[in-house]
Amino acid sequence: MTNELERLAERLREFARARDWEQFHTPKNLAMALSGEVGELVAEFQWLTAEESANLDPETLARVRGELGDVLLYLVRLADAVGVDLSGAANAKLDENERRYDPTTYRGSARKAPPLD
Amino acid sequence: MTNELERLAERLREFARARDWEQFHTPKNLAMALSGEVGELVAEFQWLTAEESANLDPETLARVRGELGDVLLYLVRLADAVGVDLSGAANAKLDENERRYDPTTYRGSARKAPPLD
Amino acid sequence: MTNELERLAERLREFARARDWEQFHTPKNLAMALSGEVGELVAEFQWLTAEESANLDPETLARVRGELGDVLLYLVRLADAVGVDLSGAANAKLDENERRYDPTTYRGSARKAPPLD
Amino acid sequence: MTNELERLAERLREFARARDWEQFHTPKNLAMALSGEVGELVAEFQWLTAEESANLDPETLARVRGELGDVLLYLVRLADAVGVDLSGAANAKLDENERRYDPTTYRGSARKAPPLD
Repeated sequence: MTNELERLAERLREFARARDWEQFHTPKNLAMALSGEVGELVAEFQWLTAEESANLDPETLARVRGELGDVLLYLVRLADAVGVDLSGAANAKLDENERRYDPTTYRGSARKAPPLD
Repeated sequence: MTNELERLAERLREFARARDWEQFHTPKNLAMALSGEVGELVAEFQWLTAEESANLDPETLARVRGELGDVLLYLVRLADAVGVDLSGAANAKLDENERRYDPTTYRGSARKAPPLD
Repeated sequence: MTNELERLAERLREFARARDWEQFHTPKNLAMALSGEVGELVAEFQWLTAEESANLDPETLARVRGELGDVLLYLVRLADAVGVDLSGAANAKLDENERRYDPTTYRGSARKAPPLD
Repeated sequence: MTNELERLAERLREFARARDWEQFHTPKNLAMALSGEVGELVAEFQWLTAEESANLDPETLARVRGELGDVLLYLVRLADAVGVDLSGAANAKLDENERRYDPTTYRGSARKAPPLD
């Protein structure tokens, strides 16, 4: 059974091929497109308080859902273009973070800004 | 069988819970963290030509792989925080794009910048 | 008397010329570099509360100052590369926003996310 | 004579005050808004070749001009909110880069990606 990210990558390959858009989909261009989409996503949250961001009204949530989808599409397409297994890369990073941030030492730590990575 | 994005979301939930970092993981903060990681990814490509970006040297590729992993981690965590099915959102967007960009009309079109979305 | 942004643009022209880096400073590349620097700036604020972001500790403030400087450098360089008068562009946008957002109608409005632009 | 960035900062202070929007203009929120605007700017360049990006058609140039203006507005407003002299910060960074990147050593270097900073 093919996994969901691989299926998305295949759909995107076919989408680009059918429109002869592969010429535009260089890793450099795709990184820019990803950045533009993340900008739209961030803009949805920019004037919200932390609380409001955790309780989106239906209209905002619908737009956020669309932007999250866009971001994943470009992320999958970019990973495919450079030959990276996206899921493997994320799990490897999380393995690393689990070792790096000891749960006891970093518990609730706000001093050191807690990154996922 | 649980899919790979759902497994990642669950690993991230447990990762945050074990460190009491849920307090930091508001949608607003996660959108910012995602944006910061995408900035690091874009920086890898900024001085490369289109051709160079499609033929990364091993050191750059390793860094790009790490950044792609970071971006997916925050993207999955953010989608989870707002209750969005990431894979469903991406497939819905791609469905929409397939309808919107007729393969014949938009074939190889550089006039209208071809977005995925 | 030359204004400060024009002086910065001239310093940057000379900086690039002296290193033969003009070849890398296409508008496309400079837009990416700007995006990368803004990502670093955003990362400084990502885990802070609104209150904390308004009361930065000296170390964070020093880093933020450096990032703000980097962002202005690339912004000035990009505007110069495309032949845009940056100060004129900003004042024109602010003129437009003053007309568009009537002070009475939009007073304290949180409903409609208040953009500067 | 007041300099142009200080004049912009003062106009923005008055703009926010008149609309009671100061409550939204925390450094954290302004960093996000800046990021969103840079995303729009990057999107203008994403499908262009390096050559095309250096020869924008009038419509694209007009949009780029608007986006450059937006970016400067938020950058000035953010610097003002954290009490940073933007022009001083940029010149200090450029001083540092002039020392760091010796013109002879780094001449035309593509090996080491040439940053401004």
